[in-house]
Amino acid sequence: MRRNIFLENTPLEEALSRWLSLCRLEGVCFPTESEFVDVRNSVGRITAESLFALISSPPFNSSAMDGVAVRAKETFGASEDNPAVFELGRNAQYIDTGEPVPPEFDAVIMIEDVNELESGSIEIIKPAVPWQNIRPIGEDITRGEMVLPGGHQVRAQDVGALLNSGLEKIPVRRKPIVAIIPTGTELVENLCLLEQGKVIESNSWALLSLVEHLGGFPLRNKLVPDDWDEIRRAVENALESSDAVIINAGTSAGREDFTKKIIEEFGKVSIHGVAMKPGKPVILGVACGKPVLGLPGFPVANWRAAEEFLKPLLREFLGRRREKEKVIRAKVARRISSRSGFDEFIGVKVGEVSGELIAVPLSRGSGISMSLVRSDGYIRVKRGCEGIERLDEVEVFLKGEQFDPERVVLVIGSNDHGLDILSSLLFRNYGLVFSAVNVGSAGGIAAVIDGYAHMGGIHLFDPKSGEFNVPYIKEKQTSERLFLMNLCWRTQGLIVKEGNPKNINSLKDIAGKGLSFINRQRGSGTRILLDYLLFKENIKPSSINGYEREVFTHMAVAAAVESDSADAGLGTMASAKALSLDFVPVSKERYDLLGRRSFTETEAFNLIRREIKGEEFKNEVDRLGGYDLEQAGEFIPIDL
Amino acid sequence: MRRNIFLENTPLEEALSRWLSLCRLEGVCFPTESEFVDVRNSVGRITAESLFALISSPPFNSSAMDGVAVRAKETFGASEDNPAVFELGRNAQYIDTGEPVPPEFDAVIMIEDVNELESGSIEIIKPAVPWQNIRPIGEDITRGEMVLPGGHQVRAQDVGALLNSGLEKIPVRRKPIVAIIPTGTELVENLCLLEQGKVIESNSWALLSLVEHLGGFPLRNKLVPDDWDEIRRAVENALESSDAVIINAGTSAGREDFTKKIIEEFGKVSIHGVAMKPGKPVILGVACGKPVLGLPGFPVANWRAAEEFLKPLLREFLGRRREKEKVIRAKVARRISSRSGFDEFIGVKVGEVSGELIAVPLSRGSGISMSLVRSDGYIRVKRGCEGIERLDEVEVFLKGEQFDPERVVLVIGSNDHGLDILSSLLFRNYGLVFSAVNVGSAGGIAAVIDGYAHMGGIHLFDPKSGEFNVPYIKEKQTSERLFLMNLCWRTQGLIVKEGNPKNINSLKDIAGKGLSFINRQRGSGTRILLDYLLFKENIKPSSINGYEREVFTHMAVAAAVESDSADAGLGTMASAKALSLDFVPVSKERYDLLGRRSFTETEAFNLIRREIKGEEFKNEVDRLGGYDLEQAGEFIPIDL
Repeated sequence: MRRNIFLENTPLEEALSRWLSLCRLEGVCFPTESEFVDVRNSVGRITAESLFALISSPPFNSSAMDGVAVRAKETFGASEDNPAVFELGRNAQYIDTGEPVPPEFDAVIMIEDVNELESGSIEIIKPAVPWQNIRPIGEDITRGEMVLPGGHQVRAQDVGALLNSGLEKIPVRRKPIVAIIPTGTELVENLCLLEQGKVIESNSWALLSLVEHLGGFPLRNKLVPDDWDEIRRAVENALESSDAVIINAGTSAGREDFTKKIIEEFGKVSIHGVAMKPGKPVILGVACGKPVLGLPGFPVANWRAAEEFLKPLLREFLGRRREKEKVIRAKVARRISSRSGFDEFIGVKVGEVSGELIAVPLSRGSGISMSLVRSDGYIRVKRGCEGIERLDEVEVFLKGEQFDPERVVLVIGSNDHGLDILSSLLFRNYGLVFSAVNVGSAGGIAAVIDGYAHMGGIHLFDPKSGEFNVPYIKEKQTSERLFLMNLCWRTQGLIVKEGNPKNINSLKDIAGKGLSFINRQRGSGTRILLDYLLFKENIKPSSINGYEREVFTHMAVAAAVESDSADAGLGTMASAKALSLDFVPVSKERYDLLGRRSFTETEAFNLIRREIKGEEFKNEVDRLGGYDLEQAGEFIPIDL
Repeated sequence: MRRNIFLENTPLEEALSRWLSLCRLEGVCFPTESEFVDVRNSVGRITAESLFALISSPPFNSSAMDGVAVRAKETFGASEDNPAVFELGRNAQYIDTGEPVPPEFDAVIMIEDVNELESGSIEIIKPAVPWQNIRPIGEDITRGEMVLPGGHQVRAQDVGALLNSGLEKIPVRRKPIVAIIPTGTELVENLCLLEQGKVIESNSWALLSLVEHLGGFPLRNKLVPDDWDEIRRAVENALESSDAVIINAGTSAGREDFTKKIIEEFGKVSIHGVAMKPGKPVILGVACGKPVLGLPGFPVANWRAAEEFLKPLLREFLGRRREKEKVIRAKVARRISSRSGFDEFIGVKVGEVSGELIAVPLSRGSGISMSLVRSDGYIRVKRGCEGIERLDEVEVFLKGEQFDPERVVLVIGSNDHGLDILSSLLFRNYGLVFSAVNVGSAGGIAAVIDGYAHMGGIHLFDPKSGEFNVPYIKEKQTSERLFLMNLCWRTQGLIVKEGNPKNINSLKDIAGKGLSFINRQRGSGTRILLDYLLFKENIKPSSINGYEREVFTHMAVAAAVESDSADAGLGTMASAKALSLDFVPVSKERYDLLGRRSFTETEAFNLIRREIKGEEFKNEVDRLGGYDLEQAGEFIPIDL
């Protein structure tokens, strides 16, 4: 069997509309039929038709107050000097809120305005207006009135009105059953089954929650290996038991990507390959009158394809209209290049810097599941757009409810373990979302000066002066008023395997020895430190095997060493210690936070500084290893 | 036992903070302890602490593509003229996306760039860069890295990252158990138990969904009558089995309002009566180390009090921070008077008229459960504020996700059954939310001219000219360019009981006969018609028993007649027919829609007009009775 090397590049909207047309043509049942549920258990369900009140509410004239029911005309002329006296049980009657007003009465006097006399009679000192404090029958809902339109998602606050209108069972759309079939020989179901070369199956669980959230009923198949017959059997079963089937994944050009051919065994494929990134390897088809989706395996691609195709599908099943997306406008913090011909979706973190909303693009890798965790929303770069310049205004499509840019502190620059701890403390103690984006120290300085970050974490050694950070800031010759505050001193060195089996004690031990190295990206403080050390010791970069192999964080360096993918890399002692690796100290460096002066006047800054100088931060950072907080929270003069 | 006639008026914020302080003092356990759940089933739960990755993702260097793994240096110099040839199994190897890259290789060439030769060898025509198309270990998440902070609500898109970081069981806050005890002798559990004077218990079901939505575990007690011992027993049980108890209601000054005293039997009451409207009769206390809430019984008051007190309580239990409320600014369509000393909450419907957001205040009655259904959010009139003038800008606190003012058509004016049908069709067919607010015809004209409604429904007879509507519009002498479009002709008349037992055939049969009448509010077209008829027939309003008794809709008139609360009222034939009442025709009238000319250029207007002229509308309206759609959708010249 030849594999499908070349996928199509169908534009997104066209792919969706072609697929949904095919669905209708092939007899897919949109929307699903209705079923009756108890109103008390209907929240989240979609009404199948407009609902009209069967009874009025209140169903009788009822008292709006706790008080006494009287005949209004018998109160006329009552005053403080000349109170009207009523005999309970004869021409007056106690009545509580909500009780029916007996037909012989036409007004209720609130209890606060009633004097109870010894005799059991009462007196009032103010005349009543006819029908005062009486809720007329049907004041809330009248029989026959529409309570909810069809296609409405029932909310908690609708439940009362529905019951009050005499609706106890209501017709709602049956939840479409969506079968999810995770496939892949490289996957395992549980962490305890993990072994070399395997990864845990996770996409199906995220989809499962998504299907539930969208109003469907998810049905997860057990994990199926990449075996033609096994997948075929799973799909056959799913087509029998559900309204739609997701095959997850096998949609690309791998040797065991059977998804397309298996769908074609049962039905038709209308789309294979969509001009979107991430999410290109999508398969859309119909089999046995059921929509079938093949979704890509990388988590971000998987999620994006589900958003673009599964979501509209469930909308069709439930007879719902497209909801307006929540959009805000923000300036992008980084240039975004784009391959024209594709709709690109780029996750962003949004914060408010000096009164302007700033969207910081996150890593675009379709395998970076953390970008789904970290992003507040995404930017869509349309087909044909060549890219977006830095500080251009863009639309950000927001993801959810938990978005509050005013509580976000954007920290762009170098990454650090201590910063992570600070972040966690600030969220826990004050609800501040400390959003750190790792672009290296040089990027951090630019972000602060250009006004798209509150602070930048930087650790740049200047060999000429022997100073940290300040010379690099001065070099920028900015007129912005800035501050520099120390976060920590930390130890940098060579991260090597546990027990240091290759006996690496300096960079010289690596150069030309055929040992493999893992490097940090250009512009990072650690890279600048490395280049300085190589220069000082007169080592040629080309003699380091792996010099060109770049990763973006200390921990990524440590992870490469831990996994035997490199023998050594330069990074912090804390990173080595976190993975129980050995560490050869090379130098101590100062890690500072740079920001605009105006930020020091905010409440957020005060909380941050208080936390940095606090015991909790100190205790947690001390545990990392290689840290010195002597100077933490001190301002460092810049003298621009 | 004397009742508590006078409630306190504790300011809202003070009430909350005093109560929560008492909770802490009395040993309420905030936040709840943590429990471990499977990540796959954790969506919606609140993390009890920060979660750190236990493994890296990817856990090994893995291929980012389907292709061939090679050693990069063996590809150097490859070109179209001079392809590099690799022997599979020796110095190259097929590799699929996600598979581990064997340690002897350091680059992956994507399958599209590989030529498969007959011999089983392959050739490539472009050199590979070392580490190209390889996802380094930890690219996504590195062991030890923070995946989620504590106090975070897990979302579907977090699930993948958690599993990828080796987290299968995570600590989350235990769901606080909230017991809900509905009380009230006037209530019944099911509609089949309804009898004269009873209403169905509904508040507890709305609260139940709210508790679930807020992350708690609701436990509903069965309905308890207003009996001291029974309520006491239910509260005692609830205090044993739950983390917090809601008693619903019995919080006011009724004869059987036991809630306060019963709480005091077990613990302390810190607040009885809050300076808010609706929702004043709130009781806040603590018993046996559990918070206890007594909530008012009227549905809108019940909901508001739950929003203001139950919501923050659950936040404390779950260790969450206060979320930012979604607020928009809009102009109010009506003057709002306010009693200073109270925080008033007024439900509003929001639409966009001529580019401006308009908030239309809905009925304020705390018994109007439909205002919870109809409102998009609420306005808060702060204590001390004397009121808000018409077209003042206010903050609207939005309720939920389904808010889209661009799809809202505000129709302010007179109510009509045909308009309800139009509303339902527009929502079903086009997703337009047709928001009708009943203020009568005169109010409708004002709303359109002053620009806070898209259209106004009006039916005003001018005795001088014998014309409908046009003279009333001309009278306004506005310079606005307006349109008037007919919706229908309809029959007005006397709505009387089935079989017309009092033999009412004209208004004369009511006047001075002691029969009871139910009237419509001043400014409504029907009221103007009545006054004209009384004038014409020389009947004094004071001779009509019930002339001063006003309701706001035709259906409310019909409901009053149906329930024997009035013998007759003036209204449409459709209203009489809806409740199977008899009807004595009096006149035919023209019901038109008035709007600004600019509105006719919108898509919404075109959809509305198309629907009015369509078969579906005609068929459904014909069934109502008394309608004539001959002229429906025709423009009526105004000649201002």
